[in-house]
Amino acid sequence: MTRYFTEENSTEAVNARMGESADPRLVEVMTCLVKHLHAFAKEIHLTQEEWDFGIDFLTRTGQICSAERQEFILLSDVLGFSMLVDAINNRRPTGATENTVLGPFHVDNPPVRKMGENICLDGKGESCLFEGRVLDLGGNPVNDARVDVWSDNADGFYDVQQLGIQPKWNNRGLFVTGEDGRYAFVGIKPVSYPIPDDGPVGKMLGKLHRHPYRPAHMHYLVTAPGYQKLVTHIFVRDDPYLESDAVFGVKKSLIASFELVKVGETQWHSPFDFVLTPISA
Amino acid sequence: MTRYFTEENSTEAVNARMGESADPRLVEVMTCLVKHLHAFAKEIHLTQEEWDFGIDFLTRTGQICSAERQEFILLSDVLGFSMLVDAINNRRPTGATENTVLGPFHVDNPPVRKMGENICLDGKGESCLFEGRVLDLGGNPVNDARVDVWSDNADGFYDVQQLGIQPKWNNRGLFVTGEDGRYAFVGIKPVSYPIPDDGPVGKMLGKLHRHPYRPAHMHYLVTAPGYQKLVTHIFVRDDPYLESDAVFGVKKSLIASFELVKVGETQWHSPFDFVLTPISA
Repeated sequence: MTRYFTEENSTEAVNARMGESADPRLVEVMTCLVKHLHAFAKEIHLTQEEWDFGIDFLTRTGQICSAERQEFILLSDVLGFSMLVDAINNRRPTGATENTVLGPFHVDNPPVRKMGENICLDGKGESCLFEGRVLDLGGNPVNDARVDVWSDNADGFYDVQQLGIQPKWNNRGLFVTGEDGRYAFVGIKPVSYPIPDDGPVGKMLGKLHRHPYRPAHMHYLVTAPGYQKLVTHIFVRDDPYLESDAVFGVKKSLIASFELVKVGETQWHSPFDFVLTPISA
Repeated sequence: MTRYFTEENSTEAVNARMGESADPRLVEVMTCLVKHLHAFAKEIHLTQEEWDFGIDFLTRTGQICSAERQEFILLSDVLGFSMLVDAINNRRPTGATENTVLGPFHVDNPPVRKMGENICLDGKGESCLFEGRVLDLGGNPVNDARVDVWSDNADGFYDVQQLGIQPKWNNRGLFVTGEDGRYAFVGIKPVSYPIPDDGPVGKMLGKLHRHPYRPAHMHYLVTAPGYQKLVTHIFVRDDPYLESDAVFGVKKSLIASFELVKVGETQWHSPFDFVLTPISA
């Protein structure tokens, strides 16, 4: 019987309090969290001073959050926790395009662009033609797929990070496939950039001797009726940060070819096919 | 070789990034934390919606913190994490008085009172004579021990929670032992009270069908040259919340006798001896 808390029975003592008629999933999650948090403290012999620091760190992380900044997501990202949750919930069959994190810079309802249109509105950066097909697992083209794309500009900032500086919807657009499943648009060859590192999470990275950079990538959110939502990036091959992405978003299958071609104004060419997974899979 | 993050190698992929020349203890703590956080997400198959809720919960917990309120300490307390850290860092030899949590209501530099003096300044509550000895492990009295005591008032609030309502230093005082190691003071028989439950942590307790009450207790912080600092409470025997303290602070050895005696104005009597542990132990 777990009457009083001791160092030895701590997990059982806490978890014995979970209400019998409380939501079963909530109880399951909290019971598991308590078990692992206690195991952490016991294994590492957490000191009182370290606990004090942790409380203060979490408090500062919460207090820097605002409508424009989510430091707890950043914390989850740099600990690989966001990618892990994404991986657990998006196990894909062989041949299907893999997911990666959405990130904080997606904007709902981007403008629909004509196939082949240029989404770079600030004239900065090296032009790149992105093209390919949206396919099903059998290699058949997917009609009416919505291909929502976004990237940073040549200075390494998304438009929403520079309101009033970058044109609205700079380097963003929505493209809808036809019966051939093809998509094509002109953007810029994205550049690597640091995640916001002037807060508690950035300080933590510094103390762990980790850099805050993400390798250059183009975001894709691809949806089509009957298929699982695909949230992913393609990464620029040969980026120096491919093997040290600050948020662990890189998957080998998502590293894309970028070839220097110089056709008219377009200097780069990046072909990539996306393979969707049916909802039933 | 851990090149890219996968669901299977997630812990290793993150921990491979810890800087080789970073502070070894920081790396040790963070490596252990990542391991247990990832194990939690994997074991429970945390959904994206649950992750979203968790991010929002932590953010709200951080944002309600202020100079007067520390919601993350409350969170740590109700998960038994504070008591666990206290237990790990204050393992005492047999016969020594056990530690429990300091709590958020201690105030430094309380007024020194004469032995036997009354610390209840608002005239509320049932008077109680607290007395006993401060001893070493061999049963010898400890001279010059500083016995710092504090409790709630009869309404269940500490003076610092009701600035301007309660007299300053109400139900607080510092007593210094002589060669006989004896202490004695008059206070009130403390009452049980709820921890602040109008924030995110209180809502969580509600959803887990847990009550927010702490059983009635008198706080003690006992220090003496050559001995470990003793941070503890004594609990009122027969309190209805003894076996369900919201912060898991109760230890069997800390449950004290409270006898109804009615001597003069003093109605209760609670004898308790404190046994200090030498620093060298």
